[in-house]
Amino acid sequence: MRRKVVKIGFIGAGSIGSLFGGYLASIHSDENPLELSFFGRRDHVVAINKEGLRLTVSDKDIFLKNIKAYEGVKDFTGSSEIGEFYKFDFLFLTTKAYDTERTMIQFKSLIESSNWFIILQNGIGNEALVKEYCNKNKILRIVTSHGALLEDYGHVFHTGVGFTKIGFAYLKPDNSNVSDYGRAEESLLFLKNLMSAGGLQTEFVEDIIKCSWEKVFVNIGINAIGALTGLKNGQLLENSSLRKLMGKAVKEALEVAHVKQINFSNRDYVELMYSVAKKTYDNKNSMLQDVLKGKPTEIDFINGRIVEFGKKLGVEVATNELLTVLIKGLESSF
Amino acid sequence: MRRKVVKIGFIGAGSIGSLFGGYLASIHSDENPLELSFFGRRDHVVAINKEGLRLTVSDKDIFLKNIKAYEGVKDFTGSSEIGEFYKFDFLFLTTKAYDTERTMIQFKSLIESSNWFIILQNGIGNEALVKEYCNKNKILRIVTSHGALLEDYGHVFHTGVGFTKIGFAYLKPDNSNVSDYGRAEESLLFLKNLMSAGGLQTEFVEDIIKCSWEKVFVNIGINAIGALTGLKNGQLLENSSLRKLMGKAVKEALEVAHVKQINFSNRDYVELMYSVAKKTYDNKNSMLQDVLKGKPTEIDFINGRIVEFGKKLGVEVATNELLTVLIKGLESSF
Repeated sequence: MRRKVVKIGFIGAGSIGSLFGGYLASIHSDENPLELSFFGRRDHVVAINKEGLRLTVSDKDIFLKNIKAYEGVKDFTGSSEIGEFYKFDFLFLTTKAYDTERTMIQFKSLIESSNWFIILQNGIGNEALVKEYCNKNKILRIVTSHGALLEDYGHVFHTGVGFTKIGFAYLKPDNSNVSDYGRAEESLLFLKNLMSAGGLQTEFVEDIIKCSWEKVFVNIGINAIGALTGLKNGQLLENSSLRKLMGKAVKEALEVAHVKQINFSNRDYVELMYSVAKKTYDNKNSMLQDVLKGKPTEIDFINGRIVEFGKKLGVEVATNELLTVLIKGLESSF
Repeated sequence: MRRKVVKIGFIGAGSIGSLFGGYLASIHSDENPLELSFFGRRDHVVAINKEGLRLTVSDKDIFLKNIKAYEGVKDFTGSSEIGEFYKFDFLFLTTKAYDTERTMIQFKSLIESSNWFIILQNGIGNEALVKEYCNKNKILRIVTSHGALLEDYGHVFHTGVGFTKIGFAYLKPDNSNVSDYGRAEESLLFLKNLMSAGGLQTEFVEDIIKCSWEKVFVNIGINAIGALTGLKNGQLLENSSLRKLMGKAVKEALEVAHVKQINFSNRDYVELMYSVAKKTYDNKNSMLQDVLKGKPTEIDFINGRIVEFGKKLGVEVATNELLTVLIKGLESSF
């Protein structure tokens, strides 16, 4: 018996989208038939359609020929094999966070008809933007610390192994029919197992929003300060004034999270942030990389979110505000 | 009758020292004999001794052949015409502010024997450093807004015409013998007239320290924020958040100045800073230029001084502190 083909798409397949999409493509078989579609930039699309996606893991290259790549919706629905009535089982959003709204509008038809829509982006609050454009009960979030680098068009490097967590952004047992939630959880576990089978060990968590905050505390301490000073993660710690400043930014974010009643453990997130900076001593953080390339940053979804929430809630967020203002000024000089 | 030769030296003759020294050299004549000595970097010294100093003003080039240049004190006192017992009438300090202490130690013998020692540098509080190394009653300060650029070794451009103010750093009629003060003032007016004759219109002011603060308010608002964002002076104003931040930094400095009882007029220095930024729309401020060249900045003498004084006096200086910490972090990445 031929198994049902699972249709998976990646909107904004850059480094992280290509990494996850590549790992999923690697487990396609007759037993486990997967159909992968990438939406990305022209050069990347052309390279993938011509030579396949090359995924470099440690010193091994994997060549994936079962991915079709497209520039946009029209390009996709106009292709004869697919037509207008294609439904994705799992459609991933892997653009930069600041491209979310534009992307939601542009890919509206595909997103609306998909079964599950998965946010795989940095930052906090992304799901609130997404839910304006689709049924919020079908939104999943993934929080990951894997590192990926698009070395060249059609060629992605897995630069650092990390964790991956998945969960529902809004759907909870207590806000939905129990059997509906059960079926939804089944789909989510199916996707989680696919990713784990591909090699990206994935954990299902009940509160993925909490996880997105836990990851962002690290980014709040490191990213903007690294981007403004040009220092690598570990070098930031060697300057006691900068180290203090990093801690201050995280403490403001923790206070905002507390007032917002984000459900945290008792972990010391300032120390966690320091320890991540230490462990990734030689990393230039992603915001610094963006700045060095003269590209926009995700500041609005990191420190900027803390400023937005802090002002609404009456929490003092002067450090995050100053960092946000300076990064946005820096972006405007490009 | 042959007039007495006036001996003038410039320690750290870079762009601003070469500009002032060049204008002074231009009025040398038999009637008005001046002997100019520059202390500077090897390449600049070699170029001046070989070809003279070239000073470009508007579209006109002036070639000055009456300047002798030296790398250091030994180089100078070892030269047969001069010997060890040379006394400068006017010895200028035109290094970057952060080089002050090292320079005072290195040029101790020349500074001690000179009649007048003139600080021609950016920043505030410079005189307090200098007085540790020489008689404070011979310290003059110049505050200027002329712009100069060392286009090449031996070649300085006058890039912007501004004001020049001169005054005693410490000597006051009420803290010295009246006739001593009168003689001192005569010397100061003599130097002021020389500079004005050269083309640098100069004004004698009673409170030059106040002037150094008035100029630094402009730098406090513009420099660090321009250096961190890469924006030109006028562009900074176009971003309302940055504009507010600039105002905030100046307001903290004004509060420090107020507590320190610096004697100000009722002028609105925040508005003054904005108007200077507007007038110099296309300027990359000097701190931004330093950062772009990967050179140390004068942050310690601008925002850093406000932090130092603010902490001593219990004035809230969070904005200046954050800017100082980020600039010092940025410097450490070079």
